[in-house]
Amino acid sequence: MKSHTTHLWLNTKNRIEFINITGKVEEEVKKSGIKEGLVLANAMHITASVFINDNESGLINDFQEWLHKLVDTKKDYKHNLTGEDNAYAHLMRTIMGREAVVAVTSGKLDFGPWEQIFYAEFDGQRKKRVMVKVIGE
Amino acid sequence: MKSHTTHLWLNTKNRIEFINITGKVEEEVKKSGIKEGLVLANAMHITASVFINDNESGLINDFQEWLHKLVDTKKDYKHNLTGEDNAYAHLMRTIMGREAVVAVTSGKLDFGPWEQIFYAEFDGQRKKRVMVKVIGE
Amino acid sequence: MKSHTTHLWLNTKNRIEFINITGKVEEEVKKSGIKEGLVLANAMHITASVFINDNESGLINDFQEWLHKLVDTKKDYKHNLTGEDNAYAHLMRTIMGREAVVAVTSGKLDFGPWEQIFYAEFDGQRKKRVMVKVIGE
Repeated sequence: MKSHTTHLWLNTKNRIEFINITGKVEEEVKKSGIKEGLVLANAMHITASVFINDNESGLINDFQEWLHKLVDTKKDYKHNLTGEDNAYAHLMRTIMGREAVVAVTSGKLDFGPWEQIFYAEFDGQRKKRVMVKVIGE
Repeated sequence: MKSHTTHLWLNTKNRIEFINITGKVEEEVKKSGIKEGLVLANAMHITASVFINDNESGLINDFQEWLHKLVDTKKDYKHNLTGEDNAYAHLMRTIMGREAVVAVTSGKLDFGPWEQIFYAEFDGQRKKRVMVKVIGE
Repeated sequence: MKSHTTHLWLNTKNRIEFINITGKVEEEVKKSGIKEGLVLANAMHITASVFINDNESGLINDFQEWLHKLVDTKKDYKHNLTGEDNAYAHLMRTIMGREAVVAVTSGKLDFGPWEQIFYAEFDGQRKKRVMVKVIGE
């Protein structure tokens, strides 16, 4: 069994921002030399997500608007008594998920027609990491 | 390390429909000949889910009713300006999740007493795929 | 490829309770002797979750309060016609997720600064299991 591990660094311009990282994950799969296996991509921070959906800017807008309906950003959260102001970001990340596990087949991400991997930042404007780990043969 | 990859094809009668695929995933694990490892099952389309829960028809009904509370199907979503009418389906799939990763032990799905794997379709009535990839030894 | 499988047993004092299981998962990774690979941790019951977030008691409180907003615990769910009273627990578990997949690098959980693994129980006060499966080399 072979493995390949990378931490991708990201820094968003906005506090809430979604970034398409499909190309970067594909690159790591290529570097790994692994033909058959799995790749794990996860946010290494607890106010960010990795998720798979459509690369369509209207939909990204819809996601963010919807998250503001499910999560009240103005509420007096207990977490914010610690001096933080990002409790909402922990909740939004929970809806979007921490990680994606993707099949690697014939050396490529084995994706359906519209699957794309996104990093979703909910408390950004600082350097954060995404784990990419490929295992297989 | 061994691996085994299948794309299952599914076509639902209704636009929103949940299908128990546990038997089909078990069959692929058996075909793989893998005794110890992991199996990944994921929707290959971005308006569908694979999730694990109880095979109880009342609960499946509760899930669908609850999703209609969390996701407004009638809203003027930006995604629908592209000519689509399925923005709600992308959001519902996000709640239910894209994938399940299951332990394979002694050649079987290593499940608790009530765990069953479901395909959840939110924009069906057409052919779609589920990835099943087993890796291990 | 090596593998290591354990079922952890847990019993909560309260019906809804979150428990930090990071140390227990780390112990299994150590026992496995695996240096490079993946570890899967999942609830083996369908009214409980394994998720990754911050070990901060205020936030745990915020999570539980938020789940009560997204899921009505008093509703007449169809599932409860079977004699159960835990339909709400199936829905809350869906928000928090069933499983976490974590990279193992140099024999350790390859985590960002604040990542911790939690078991979230939504219908407890009885013995339940968490799967921990490590694969790699």
